[in-house]
Amino acid sequence: MSAKPKFAVVLSGCGVYDGSEIHEAVLTLLAIDRQGGSYQCFAPDIDQYHVINHVVGAPGAETRNVLVESARIARGAILPLSQYKPADFDVIVFPGGFGAAKNLCTFAVDGPDCTVDPDAEAAITATYEARKPIVALCISPALVAKVLGHVEVTIGDDPATAQALAAMGATHAPRTHGETCVDAKHKVITSPCYMLNATVGQIADGANAAIAEAIKMM
Amino acid sequence: MSAKPKFAVVLSGCGVYDGSEIHEAVLTLLAIDRQGGSYQCFAPDIDQYHVINHVVGAPGAETRNVLVESARIARGAILPLSQYKPADFDVIVFPGGFGAAKNLCTFAVDGPDCTVDPDAEAAITATYEARKPIVALCISPALVAKVLGHVEVTIGDDPATAQALAAMGATHAPRTHGETCVDAKHKVITSPCYMLNATVGQIADGANAAIAEAIKMM
Repeated sequence: MSAKPKFAVVLSGCGVYDGSEIHEAVLTLLAIDRQGGSYQCFAPDIDQYHVINHVVGAPGAETRNVLVESARIARGAILPLSQYKPADFDVIVFPGGFGAAKNLCTFAVDGPDCTVDPDAEAAITATYEARKPIVALCISPALVAKVLGHVEVTIGDDPATAQALAAMGATHAPRTHGETCVDAKHKVITSPCYMLNATVGQIADGANAAIAEAIKMM
Repeated sequence: MSAKPKFAVVLSGCGVYDGSEIHEAVLTLLAIDRQGGSYQCFAPDIDQYHVINHVVGAPGAETRNVLVESARIARGAILPLSQYKPADFDVIVFPGGFGAAKNLCTFAVDGPDCTVDPDAEAAITATYEARKPIVALCISPALVAKVLGHVEVTIGDDPATAQALAAMGATHAPRTHGETCVDAKHKVITSPCYMLNATVGQIADGANAAIAEAIKMM
């Protein structure tokens, strides 16, 4: 373990319905900072699956880029995900939001048959092979399950999503607010966050718990 | 003071360079939740002053709506600022970001001679006349100073901004990370947040301190 744990945080846009869930992303950064870590944000340099008007909840005709929109959460301090190398970090973290299941992979649209963004797939595979912890919040465990298959994860308690995870070879463990599922063998840490109806404080609890488990595991 | 303090949080878009500073906005919501309050987000239903690519820091040709983009931070639970009534709330809060100084008013462009969005002006004036606390973070004190004039506020320690505040009739009090300036007479509470170089944890400290002062003042 390095003196100051180094976290790579992978964003997927900026907004719960078409990108990173903003509370989960910011509270992940806060949890890392509060627990003595440093972070670098990454996102793939690709177009979003679509752009949702978050007032009415419907898609429009616009095109937006995942890296460019993610930079809003990162205050500009972001790198293309293609530049991520596990050797530079101790942990990789995927906050949730539909962006994880529309942009990083297509799970929200295609379910277990989804495809995965090549940079996201390479990042997860390389981190797994480097035996470093992978943290996934909210719906992001679906992305990790699609890439790694045989992992134990939680997405809260939704039966349909749990079934889809099983179809990708993963095992689902029900968890509630602020709890984590720790797959020590595969070094995968997950927490439900907004996969459950939650307050912003409960999201902070989930992010804090997941980051704490990652630091313990390093 | 009501059993559960009710906060109106006024957003100005979604992203530090052309909207609400996302960390300040989310950590304001977290501070309210952690301190036992409830919140409702608002934003004016107007076009943004411009849209900045947050990777390169330059404006593009796009048009975006302040209410629609702010809804990303609010997870869709947002109302037009024109619907805000002080009678429904105990406190009004303005997180920072350039949106406060480009969309809610034009201070970032026009300095002390700036104009103010009519809904933002009405919200501040009505809250002030109702003798309820107004919280302003980061650069938002410039907006409050433009509307109310004779208030004591902090924007950290930047001499040029402090001078511009004075030109609008306000008094500037230097403050550092996590500190507040409390103008008890006018019920205005301010904290520098990202007007200083800050970590995300220091932003949480500033938001927590400002919300705590508002609850004390109710």
